[in-house]
Amino acid sequence: MTVVVGNPKPASRTLTAAKLLASALAPQSEPTVLDLVTLGPALLGWGDPAVAEAVRTVRESQVAIFASPTFKATYTGLLKLFLEQFDGGTGLADVVAVPLMLGAGPTHALAPDLLLKPVLTEIGATTALPGLYLSDRTFSEDGAIERYAGRWRPVLTALASKVSGGEVANHA
Amino acid sequence: MTVVVGNPKPASRTLTAAKLLASALAPQSEPTVLDLVTLGPALLGWGDPAVAEAVRTVRESQVAIFASPTFKATYTGLLKLFLEQFDGGTGLADVVAVPLMLGAGPTHALAPDLLLKPVLTEIGATTALPGLYLSDRTFSEDGAIERYAGRWRPVLTALASKVSGGEVANHA
Amino acid sequence: MTVVVGNPKPASRTLTAAKLLASALAPQSEPTVLDLVTLGPALLGWGDPAVAEAVRTVRESQVAIFASPTFKATYTGLLKLFLEQFDGGTGLADVVAVPLMLGAGPTHALAPDLLLKPVLTEIGATTALPGLYLSDRTFSEDGAIERYAGRWRPVLTALASKVSGGEVANHA
Amino acid sequence: MTVVVGNPKPASRTLTAAKLLASALAPQSEPTVLDLVTLGPALLGWGDPAVAEAVRTVRESQVAIFASPTFKATYTGLLKLFLEQFDGGTGLADVVAVPLMLGAGPTHALAPDLLLKPVLTEIGATTALPGLYLSDRTFSEDGAIERYAGRWRPVLTALASKVSGGEVANHA
Repeated sequence: MTVVVGNPKPASRTLTAAKLLASALAPQSEPTVLDLVTLGPALLGWGDPAVAEAVRTVRESQVAIFASPTFKATYTGLLKLFLEQFDGGTGLADVVAVPLMLGAGPTHALAPDLLLKPVLTEIGATTALPGLYLSDRTFSEDGAIERYAGRWRPVLTALASKVSGGEVANHA
Repeated sequence: MTVVVGNPKPASRTLTAAKLLASALAPQSEPTVLDLVTLGPALLGWGDPAVAEAVRTVRESQVAIFASPTFKATYTGLLKLFLEQFDGGTGLADVVAVPLMLGAGPTHALAPDLLLKPVLTEIGATTALPGLYLSDRTFSEDGAIERYAGRWRPVLTALASKVSGGEVANHA
Repeated sequence: MTVVVGNPKPASRTLTAAKLLASALAPQSEPTVLDLVTLGPALLGWGDPAVAEAVRTVRESQVAIFASPTFKATYTGLLKLFLEQFDGGTGLADVVAVPLMLGAGPTHALAPDLLLKPVLTEIGATTALPGLYLSDRTFSEDGAIERYAGRWRPVLTALASKVSGGEVANHA
Repeated sequence: MTVVVGNPKPASRTLTAAKLLASALAPQSEPTVLDLVTLGPALLGWGDPAVAEAVRTVRESQVAIFASPTFKATYTGLLKLFLEQFDGGTGLADVVAVPLMLGAGPTHALAPDLLLKPVLTEIGATTALPGLYLSDRTFSEDGAIERYAGRWRPVLTALASKVSGGEVANHA
């Protein structure tokens, strides 16, 4: 599993929450973490080797969590810059993508499903799980991550095994 | 598999397209078809037995296609009335829901993913497949249904077997 | 000003809130109220005289508030049925449309701007004001209506006078 | 009028189209053009003087066109980075913001109203005009800019005069 973090602050609460979610969804494995801010200005162009390597890591993941704080009621420009590095339609063709957003209060709770998930879908990901929206103040103790993981882990397991078996990959 | 058709005209092209999609996704089985317009004014209230029976049919389906023409750039009020009959969060908890919309031209092609899918997600469905948007003039011959089914059938199969095994159902 | 209420319960809190908003936006005038549920099953078809009369009332309004409770994280099917009675692109061409939604908690606060406003825009309305989302428990005393009206009344006044002067109406 | 261009390629067709739209909406004046790519990596942080100056220019505009190509079915990360530099709720409080997107085909035509406009609304802009979506191949000759300007110029004029008179600015 890979965790992609689109917070302009390094080592953010977004990253902490995304890692907790990864653990809850796949307790037995350690996720690869991509803290996008470390890629820096290379994200503003195309062809940077470190960016290409990050893209490859995500493409080859069975499951990737795409995590962002809520800025202006939606995901960050930093995360979007990274998503623009993938091929449209097929860039995430073999990946189950999980949209995760954190906000200070509940008013933007629709953003993961209405805004972040569609862009992942557009890049070809299997977005089988609903978006998860967490309070950036209480996520480590409010139980939301555990409830979500308990509800959706079986779906993820079913899909990941299918993907790894290569059956999902047979498409144009 | 169940096909839910939210076109105010009975036996519409929406219904024809939804049945073709059902066949392409599950060639070996005959779908149950719910043409919502036949439920009529009962959808404006709560507690009608025929509506309750239709809701039960959908709830007990492993897979349901929710099909609508595009009216004012989104799905129909008729379909929404039916969706309001389900319990929020859990009403479609054991169902893999496939959003399908038809339109006269391509300008509303984002509507299934941005508008119809989120309401299905809200009712608790597993919306693992992207929305499908079809031309209501060419869908029977343009190959879009077949391409979509070829790409997504393995995902549906993986999920449906998981759901039928009951592993998805264990949640509050 | 006209108030359109899409709550399946007659004389709802949605209606009360919409009337309060109308008063706050135009203190000197009494709004016309259309409680859509009173139109009943006629909304499921086309050509009903009472529905046509309601459509005409809205078309001829300088300002119309479109009010809905939040069902499944979006506006109601009842309201959508009514909106489907207007001509696409031009049906609300001379109307400044104000999207209003009420919900039990803040989690669906993005729905007026992301979901209700676009359908009003699609029908040709001038949607110059942001969507307003109110708590259905506290709206009569929490000050949200007054703050919104204080902020946006000047914009409405500027537009309404322009519309009434006919300058907005010159379009294909 | 100010034109904000969020295309990672400098001097893009997006810029050309935005300038044509500016001319059509306000024929008598020359717009200020901000080609965001020239701000470069400074957009990834906060506090850069050139970015602050660009923000100030937009804040003090009566009307601003926000223009973006369509990447992954939505506006660019580059444009979002710039929007994140504004204060939430009030950053565009005195600005009438016009959402403009260009795409290779019509399939993403809903993006300006469903995706770009809400973020401008969130920052406090008056988004009275509908989103405009243009073909990046035919915009200079297909008449879409002229039709849009002819339809919406009166609304813009009414609002801009109101804003310049300071009546819109009285808010918390």
